[in-house]
Amino acid sequence: MRQASVRAHNLALVLRHVAAASRPPSRADLAASTGLTRATVSALVDDLVGGGLLAEVGPAPRAGAGRPAAGLVLHGYGPAGLGLEINVDYLAGCVVDLTGTVQHRAIVHGDQRRLDPAGVLAAVADLGAELRAEAAAAGRTVAGAALAVPGLVSGVGLVHRAPNLAWHDVDAAGTLAAGPLGDLPLIVDNEANLAAIAELHADGQGLDSFVYVSGEIGIGAGIVLHRDLFRGARGWSGELGHVCVRPDGPRCRCGASGCLEQYAGQEALLRDLPPGEAGLARLRAEAALAEARLPAAGRSLGVALAGVVNMLDVDTVVLGGIFGPLAPWLAPAVEAELSQRVLTSAWSPMTVRASALGPAAAAVGAAGAVVRDILAEPAAWVRA
Amino acid sequence: MRQASVRAHNLALVLRHVAAASRPPSRADLAASTGLTRATVSALVDDLVGGGLLAEVGPAPRAGAGRPAAGLVLHGYGPAGLGLEINVDYLAGCVVDLTGTVQHRAIVHGDQRRLDPAGVLAAVADLGAELRAEAAAAGRTVAGAALAVPGLVSGVGLVHRAPNLAWHDVDAAGTLAAGPLGDLPLIVDNEANLAAIAELHADGQGLDSFVYVSGEIGIGAGIVLHRDLFRGARGWSGELGHVCVRPDGPRCRCGASGCLEQYAGQEALLRDLPPGEAGLARLRAEAALAEARLPAAGRSLGVALAGVVNMLDVDTVVLGGIFGPLAPWLAPAVEAELSQRVLTSAWSPMTVRASALGPAAAAVGAAGAVVRDILAEPAAWVRA
Repeated sequence: MRQASVRAHNLALVLRHVAAASRPPSRADLAASTGLTRATVSALVDDLVGGGLLAEVGPAPRAGAGRPAAGLVLHGYGPAGLGLEINVDYLAGCVVDLTGTVQHRAIVHGDQRRLDPAGVLAAVADLGAELRAEAAAAGRTVAGAALAVPGLVSGVGLVHRAPNLAWHDVDAAGTLAAGPLGDLPLIVDNEANLAAIAELHADGQGLDSFVYVSGEIGIGAGIVLHRDLFRGARGWSGELGHVCVRPDGPRCRCGASGCLEQYAGQEALLRDLPPGEAGLARLRAEAALAEARLPAAGRSLGVALAGVVNMLDVDTVVLGGIFGPLAPWLAPAVEAELSQRVLTSAWSPMTVRASALGPAAAAVGAAGAVVRDILAEPAAWVRA
Repeated sequence: MRQASVRAHNLALVLRHVAAASRPPSRADLAASTGLTRATVSALVDDLVGGGLLAEVGPAPRAGAGRPAAGLVLHGYGPAGLGLEINVDYLAGCVVDLTGTVQHRAIVHGDQRRLDPAGVLAAVADLGAELRAEAAAAGRTVAGAALAVPGLVSGVGLVHRAPNLAWHDVDAAGTLAAGPLGDLPLIVDNEANLAAIAELHADGQGLDSFVYVSGEIGIGAGIVLHRDLFRGARGWSGELGHVCVRPDGPRCRCGASGCLEQYAGQEALLRDLPPGEAGLARLRAEAALAEARLPAAGRSLGVALAGVVNMLDVDTVVLGGIFGPLAPWLAPAVEAELSQRVLTSAWSPMTVRASALGPAAAAVGAAGAVVRDILAEPAAWVRA
């Protein structure tokens, strides 16, 4: 057992060094950077290549003595992660390879409130099964799946409440385990949490502590502090959409009044416009419409975020989901409210910027979570 | 060096076991509970008794063979902590002994906004010096001091901003180091943070994750998650008083509009009444006055706290400072807003309660922080 655990640790160590290297390292480079012997590194690399986790990329043949050293890279055709996302007006999925590249993706627009939870979960499982088949046809093995949902999730994959879907106590993990993806390890998490972690990794080393705002029909937040997801006391943090902006404001689907979603959620932005992408495209295309709606929504977003920043003390806000492409109109208003309302802004200005991720960021984040799990524990993929 | 560090660790270990014991343990009890040998425990105990950290309490003499074992307790007359608090309308101080008991205390009412920061710091240092002399006369040695301030503090004791005092970049630690307490180790921290930690320790094992609300002229918050103070990304978390309740509300001293302090701060509660304790006493005594003002303030407090709980996911709110004695009128309104606005309240009800600490809780918390430092690193108090 002890020896097996040392080997598992060393396999992960080698993978980490390959992932972090600025150019494909040789076995000798890895021995130098990990501190392991060249013989040990060579045996570990052989196993990782055999398991489809690493690939050797040969240098151009050259004259002279000695065999040129092959460089090692994470394998683009080895085990991969399947990410799935249920949102109010779409289902999304993607397959991400070990290098973090999205290789296959799909999105199905449609109002999920018309189906019951079992129907929505069956549809997203079918979408996942199609993507898995597509990945298999291309030579990739889906190693696990993660599902992002816009709601409060417990550690065992129970969706306690997703107000915009009207879900209460839906056993998402159990339902998926009985379907076509039931043979895969499965994670269920909040969509804003998964997107926030994806943002952290997509950004490289630049971000440290930030609030990722997920703008969809609902508005969620993922809080990252010192490069770690902050889940709160019970794992249900980040319900930004239900932070109150005006106590006597309009009634929200959650039962309260004046929630941020009533001012800056997708349905508020698109009132009297076609729902979904059609409406959003008009909002981006028609300057008068954008100017009439988005700065006001940005101010409400700024009021809610200023409260968050006063309490949590982060210095960066990342606008994601539909807010990303709308950032040119939203961000100035958010910044103005933050600079007026955040006590620390006098000496420590805030940064507000659009997400580096595209749409369905939570699905990408979900797939990325699976890939990071494989890289952290690669022993299951190599012969014992 | 290695040996010295093992000894320092063991000294702290013995103290921790004495502090946690339900009745005064003997040396043999301590050997059993710590796993150290009886000879080692005996030597450590001798040193801790010699340093004034432990006292032996003898059992009643009895007949029969063998000397009855003495029990050990934390020393009430050994090194002690000095806690100081600057607030807008008072200065406070106290000396807490190693058992956590407040032995000496003083409070001086008066509006601190009439003095410049140097004047306020000189006054609080004088108050501290008086308490230190009083403690010395009673046989206690003040081992260190901690100062609580209602503002944003950096690790080096710089008060970046205290809006209600109109302080900007005041070097509190440097100024105190040049005064009569300059020979003592000194901590400067936010008053709500210090009070929250004091609340955690005063409560025993009951509290895990909560927001402590410090109601004074300003309103601050200390956030405790899984029994640890949550300081945010840069140490400036918990500015609850400047969470916005109504974006178009009255102008606040911080420059923003509609901050919680404008609805539930002491000056809002006491408008047209005498300031300070006189006004608070009338509010508590006159039912019509209390009913006219406090439930509305409680609702504003509840709106702001609901946003905090939606984002941070804690399940308990502790009302401290002036809010403690006013909790009978405030708490029902706070609870009503939380139950309407917090998404998780449907299946996980919130607890709202008055602080277990009296007035000037931050001064008690400050002194307690010094005492915990002594107990955690007792080596400085015993011969090498």
